[in-house]
Amino acid sequence: MKTTALIMAGGRGERFWPKSRKSTPKQFLSLTNSEKTMIQETVDRMLPLVAIEDIFIATNRDYKALVKEQLPDLPEENILCEPMAKNTAPCIGWGAVTARKRYGDAMMIVLPSDHLIQQPALFRGVLKSAIQTAQDTDALVTLGISPTSPDTGYGYIQYDTEEDAVGRAFKVKRFVEKPDLETAKKYLMSGEYLWNSGMFIWKASTILKEMEEKLPEHYALLEQIEKAIGTEEEEEALEAAFGQMKGISIDYGVMEKAKNVYVIPSSFGWDDVGSWLAVERINPGNDMGNVIKGDVVTVNSTRCIVQGGNKTIAMVGLEDMIIVDTPDALLVCAKDSAGDIKKVLEVFRAVNRTELL
Amino acid sequence: MKTTALIMAGGRGERFWPKSRKSTPKQFLSLTNSEKTMIQETVDRMLPLVAIEDIFIATNRDYKALVKEQLPDLPEENILCEPMAKNTAPCIGWGAVTARKRYGDAMMIVLPSDHLIQQPALFRGVLKSAIQTAQDTDALVTLGISPTSPDTGYGYIQYDTEEDAVGRAFKVKRFVEKPDLETAKKYLMSGEYLWNSGMFIWKASTILKEMEEKLPEHYALLEQIEKAIGTEEEEEALEAAFGQMKGISIDYGVMEKAKNVYVIPSSFGWDDVGSWLAVERINPGNDMGNVIKGDVVTVNSTRCIVQGGNKTIAMVGLEDMIIVDTPDALLVCAKDSAGDIKKVLEVFRAVNRTELL
Repeated sequence: MKTTALIMAGGRGERFWPKSRKSTPKQFLSLTNSEKTMIQETVDRMLPLVAIEDIFIATNRDYKALVKEQLPDLPEENILCEPMAKNTAPCIGWGAVTARKRYGDAMMIVLPSDHLIQQPALFRGVLKSAIQTAQDTDALVTLGISPTSPDTGYGYIQYDTEEDAVGRAFKVKRFVEKPDLETAKKYLMSGEYLWNSGMFIWKASTILKEMEEKLPEHYALLEQIEKAIGTEEEEEALEAAFGQMKGISIDYGVMEKAKNVYVIPSSFGWDDVGSWLAVERINPGNDMGNVIKGDVVTVNSTRCIVQGGNKTIAMVGLEDMIIVDTPDALLVCAKDSAGDIKKVLEVFRAVNRTELL
Repeated sequence: MKTTALIMAGGRGERFWPKSRKSTPKQFLSLTNSEKTMIQETVDRMLPLVAIEDIFIATNRDYKALVKEQLPDLPEENILCEPMAKNTAPCIGWGAVTARKRYGDAMMIVLPSDHLIQQPALFRGVLKSAIQTAQDTDALVTLGISPTSPDTGYGYIQYDTEEDAVGRAFKVKRFVEKPDLETAKKYLMSGEYLWNSGMFIWKASTILKEMEEKLPEHYALLEQIEKAIGTEEEEEALEAAFGQMKGISIDYGVMEKAKNVYVIPSSFGWDDVGSWLAVERINPGNDMGNVIKGDVVTVNSTRCIVQGGNKTIAMVGLEDMIIVDTPDALLVCAKDSAGDIKKVLEVFRAVNRTELL
């Protein structure tokens, strides 16, 4: 069976402002040590496993040009531009009917476009095992990251440690939302919980059967899209279907309710690169614990994250600060306030300074 | 007797980096709410008392063009460009022989070019009184600022509270160097100490007589300069004399040793604008205690000093920070580390990045 990948790249992440903007969100930036952008890295690490013509990018019209520019080898018809954002279930459903239309059935690897994986060969090994499980059992397989801290920023997946694994995959007991710190600590201690990575492996036929059962209205609309694919009515059908579909996540709409769900406990240097603080997790700091990019002079400064722009930055007597310089905006933020960066964007929206979003 | 002013503008202050540079030191910048630069303000506040053609600017060759540009009404021959920096005594001595050569004798008001005076009319009232005292008694008169805090950043002047004042001027007991905090507190409590403002009022003949006695080698060289003024040898004589004169301050060379020294306790909204922290003393903060210039968005930030440049600055979760943005350099500094800004410049000197000094 043909193996395909569906890479979701429609996000408009705000947490890397001012480097990420509405016009250039995180997946189109290089935030790690790589010279490639995150979406380029995501595609590159799939290539030993999936041919470029079997990789699909789900995004929206605003980013089509960026996808074409950053992934020039990708066939243009593999860029799926959603007419509007309806969360992950409609997006994945469209990917599934596209695969079914093109190949009859296909293995699908569903991935975010903006995560870091530091050990790609290990990652592909896990994927191969997941493909085997999905093939053999008609299961919905997901990858769960073995937690290294009681992080409250992730959803968790509890798995059945008693039942035998199918390949490397264990039966999922339940998906849980982001916990509070106490609960997260219990999860970590128990050894039964994994971080929800948002990566899925299944046959198109499997996920579509689940959607038909659990999201029948969505499924009916997806069938209409499928009929129109390759015809003159395709665009119109897409607009109509997406216009009618309710926004819902694949986790909430399918995974939490499905029976035949497996998870592979994984450790391949994964990071969701969820905020500026990730830069410090990913990159080694210098003697003073500063992670610095650009022309920066530090005096008595420690544990700071700095991304310089065109000018020299001098830091004097700073601790635990984030400094990000871009041509039109500068961020200076206390690390423990990184979650408040979105409030800056709220201000810009309130005063209609869209050029800064 | 003609009243003249000698404004000292040779300083290369580093404490306002990155706004002040070697090429544009503090006196040529606007650091207060005024649109005028500090030297322009200094000249403006003298004009009701001293004609522009009787105002002299002592500086060095590097800043001659800046002085001409910022003070276009000042006669060019009133710009005294020292061939090299030799501290205040040679500079003031040159000013005094220049006044003697031009006017026979003259009243001299000697002033720094980079201080703030918020009540200039009060200031001129004090100067008039100082002139009267200097005229009547052949005294060296200085202005002492009534201290409002036990500041350890200033030298202090102890005056005689028993003896009657001459006009508003009291006999000086002694000059003291910058004290430690305990000593400064005692000075403040005693009511006998004033901050040394570096402003002097005397006749040219008086200060030259004192220099002849206390700095005879300097005086002999100043006489050589005086002889050459207005001749073809002037520049050469200046080079020779400054080359031979030892660098020494007027405080150490004359004031501390002289007998007939008076001080006028003064309060006219004086600030020496000695570091970025002065910006906060001078300008009222907003609701959150931030003093902001430029396009700045603050989220949960308080007691910060911000001087924006061409771009938007977003501050998130900051306390007691100094942020100064310029086209080629950005400073982010904890307020309590403002004294370490000079260390940044040491780094630039060490790596020969003179463009940033």
